[in-house]
Amino acid sequence: MRVLVFGLGALGSVFAAFLKKAGHDVFAVGRPRVVEAVKKGGLKVSGLWGEHGVKLEKVYPSVEGLPEREFDLVILTVKSYDTERALEELKKVSFRYLMLAQNGYGNYERAVEVFGPEKVILSRVIFGARLVSPGEAEVTVSADDVVIGSPAGAIDGKFLEELARLLSEAGIPTRHEPAVYKYLWDKILYNSALNALGALLETNYGTLARLEETRELMDRVIEEIFAVAEAKGIELFHRSADEYKRLFYEKLLPPTAEHYPSTYWDLMAGKRTEVDALNGAIVRLGREAGVPTPVNEVITNLLKAKEKLKLPQG
Amino acid sequence: MRVLVFGLGALGSVFAAFLKKAGHDVFAVGRPRVVEAVKKGGLKVSGLWGEHGVKLEKVYPSVEGLPEREFDLVILTVKSYDTERALEELKKVSFRYLMLAQNGYGNYERAVEVFGPEKVILSRVIFGARLVSPGEAEVTVSADDVVIGSPAGAIDGKFLEELARLLSEAGIPTRHEPAVYKYLWDKILYNSALNALGALLETNYGTLARLEETRELMDRVIEEIFAVAEAKGIELFHRSADEYKRLFYEKLLPPTAEHYPSTYWDLMAGKRTEVDALNGAIVRLGREAGVPTPVNEVITNLLKAKEKLKLPQG
Repeated sequence: MRVLVFGLGALGSVFAAFLKKAGHDVFAVGRPRVVEAVKKGGLKVSGLWGEHGVKLEKVYPSVEGLPEREFDLVILTVKSYDTERALEELKKVSFRYLMLAQNGYGNYERAVEVFGPEKVILSRVIFGARLVSPGEAEVTVSADDVVIGSPAGAIDGKFLEELARLLSEAGIPTRHEPAVYKYLWDKILYNSALNALGALLETNYGTLARLEETRELMDRVIEEIFAVAEAKGIELFHRSADEYKRLFYEKLLPPTAEHYPSTYWDLMAGKRTEVDALNGAIVRLGREAGVPTPVNEVITNLLKAKEKLKLPQG
Repeated sequence: MRVLVFGLGALGSVFAAFLKKAGHDVFAVGRPRVVEAVKKGGLKVSGLWGEHGVKLEKVYPSVEGLPEREFDLVILTVKSYDTERALEELKKVSFRYLMLAQNGYGNYERAVEVFGPEKVILSRVIFGARLVSPGEAEVTVSADDVVIGSPAGAIDGKFLEELARLLSEAGIPTRHEPAVYKYLWDKILYNSALNALGALLETNYGTLARLEETRELMDRVIEEIFAVAEAKGIELFHRSADEYKRLFYEKLLPPTAEHYPSTYWDLMAGKRTEVDALNGAIVRLGREAGVPTPVNEVITNLLKAKEKLKLPQG
């Protein structure tokens, strides 16, 4: 399979390394600094799934440099705030399928607008990886298989099963689920409740659950998401906000109590966050549906302000 | 005049020192550590109103220790979160008048419930003072006279004029204004817009006005206060939220752009804040009146959570 990995952050590095190692014809596009490092030292993956090192020569700072422009599969691994720019770039290549390995709401919807539902595969990635240095990723945690699917039901199930098998064989446990969109929204729920609040208050998940003030805010974030989802016809796994809250506080949160959200680490490193694809997306969807989302709105505004204050000047 | 100053923080130290210096019979109640320091070294005031040092022997860690229990005037200078406890203590003494020198909503209302409107004088204090060390205060800024009055109209205007003259002669510029409640609310407006947000984002007033996200939040805080005030029949100096916002951004805020809110300094020092008498009071009044105040609510919750995280353990 000829694959283009677009974005060589932690996640992109893992996909590129494992697919290359499995014998696929892998191309990658990344930031110049990363491209330099990978050309020199290859890709390294450590952590949960073992130690791996592969050479990757076909790595470029932009699609313009690609010697091939036709791919079986493009895997998009950029952060949500870079999706628009990435899709614009990807108009310059041709591909059979584009698989999104991103967080939050809006990436799939936008990709479908640009390339059509029959080309776009959504994935819910729930393993965690961090970039140790350019080209060097560590897999830190894996909560479940990668789940792939076509929310629009526009891609043959057989092919999706086949792609899941191929990714699993390459070392990234993956399964096909027609309900992939529900899986994505489950992650949106979890991240919207915890990430921005943890980053604002610079604290961990357990503390957010322990303080009555933040617990009340998380309750309200979750309730607003359920109201928005219902108004927009978005199906969730859970019948009610109360049902999800029980699951959230009793089962999902406790094992990660010590965890600080990725949004916190991003802010502290002076990086942009994905709040616009999480709480910010809830606000936008709420406006479209006429559903008030004041708690998500205030949290989004505060986090975006904090982001501006923490970003390196200029 | 026999005066009891209840609370020997920065503000109480200034009142006690200036009244003592002017020849009044001043008693004071403060924390044990402060009482020790004042007994030893007296009270010192520096800054805007000159350098002053006075001896103050009649200073006690509680009302129980007071050799006299009858006062012409009690000046209450504790933080809002200590009001309830202070009023309870003050039931043990008798006084002609109780003058509140505090911030925010709820202190006057509560004091009137306990002692009756004919005994309680409200003041709007808008000079700033900080405690350099126990017994040693610095007057840092003064925006206007202290304004005193009886919101209930239950105290003779002649006496209030006389008290204002006496305080002014002692060195604390003061005037009587029947509209003192509007003055207090003007300060509540200003502080509610700026203090909690500045403390949450750890930034100054100018930055809060410059970032569109925080500006939007301040607009909403102000709008919610106007809606609550209207529903509760609280009169403000300004006809509309828009009128106040213009004044706020164009006139009031620019001269203090570099200023970090007292709430920020309190938090950083691990102290409690007065958010419950500012944004938190708006939320309570909103609930009573059936007026939604989601922005003040989220901000209050976040600040109270941050306060808990910053307070010294135990």
